[in-house]
Amino acid sequence: MQQLQITTSQHTELQDITAKIQSSIPDDYTGSLLIYTPHTTVAIMVNEGADPAVQGDIIAMLEHLVPWKYETFQHAEGNSAAHIKAMLVGNDQMLIVNQGRLQLGTWEKIFFCEFDGPRTRKIWVQLHQS
Amino acid sequence: MQQLQITTSQHTELQDITAKIQSSIPDDYTGSLLIYTPHTTVAIMVNEGADPAVQGDIIAMLEHLVPWKYETFQHAEGNSAAHIKAMLVGNDQMLIVNQGRLQLGTWEKIFFCEFDGPRTRKIWVQLHQS
Amino acid sequence: MQQLQITTSQHTELQDITAKIQSSIPDDYTGSLLIYTPHTTVAIMVNEGADPAVQGDIIAMLEHLVPWKYETFQHAEGNSAAHIKAMLVGNDQMLIVNQGRLQLGTWEKIFFCEFDGPRTRKIWVQLHQS
Repeated sequence: MQQLQITTSQHTELQDITAKIQSSIPDDYTGSLLIYTPHTTVAIMVNEGADPAVQGDIIAMLEHLVPWKYETFQHAEGNSAAHIKAMLVGNDQMLIVNQGRLQLGTWEKIFFCEFDGPRTRKIWVQLHQS
Repeated sequence: MQQLQITTSQHTELQDITAKIQSSIPDDYTGSLLIYTPHTTVAIMVNEGADPAVQGDIIAMLEHLVPWKYETFQHAEGNSAAHIKAMLVGNDQMLIVNQGRLQLGTWEKIFFCEFDGPRTRKIWVQLHQS
Repeated sequence: MQQLQITTSQHTELQDITAKIQSSIPDDYTGSLLIYTPHTTVAIMVNEGADPAVQGDIIAMLEHLVPWKYETFQHAEGNSAAHIKAMLVGNDQMLIVNQGRLQLGTWEKIFFCEFDGPRTRKIWVQLHQS
């Protein structure tokens, strides 16, 4: 398992980590890869990376669905919305690797989703045998 | 890794791919299986397959939560709702295989979720060692 | 693959299963672990376990997003909301294991999410080679 560090710069941010993940994979490795983030207010997502407007629309819709301030929230730290967004998107992602290359679709990029930043965050990357 | 092809016939559709996935598994294989789809407006889901009304209710609620037209969407292609539904459901699914048979619950079926069809789509299936 | 049994006591409940999962792992095992639940109205989640208010806020927001009674639901059994919540949270979870210990973040716990209880439920745990 490798640990990578991510620095986010905004409260809510989708950061393209595809190159960082790709560079963690040994040449000629074939199998699969687990990305896992050990924080409870962030997530890992694979989605379109071509048009940045998609990322903006995702952030806006998640905020619409799970507003930062919601009348019944009880958690004293005040960031329940971030926990809920993290749950909906998920903190683990499996990917396929062939001869050292991530196998992604034409428009796919891997995003680190920060929902309560800015902070320094960790992701764990583990190679799996297929 | 095997590549399977899916043809969807509606704009939004949950297609039962259980038999297709099962037939891609070698006899006597024991371990696990990753299903991954390399598109950004579709997803893979395991849920009830007995009553088709469940699938209709899922489609209706996703459309209610993430309407196709939403006032702030900026993505010029106009399909941000499909990207967001794909993110909420997820593009990867792990399953357990025992002696060549998918291990599913009584009511479980595997569904390919099309959110911006109809189109021809791909799914990738990879066997993992347990 | 090991099968564990979970007994839920409420209709909707997030039950901390971290200790149960940890105790299913052999000493000195290093690799990863798949948790899979074969039911269609429950889910597996990793999120904050320190403040129980987070779990209450998650349950309340999921109920707000996907109300138990929704005008267009057709499924005769009446539990479509539980199927939809299960889909949004997901029925599989990958975790990393190092020398017999689950690798979790500081605040992370593993939760079994019951959305249509109380019932006796199963989870399957499978070790994977990394």
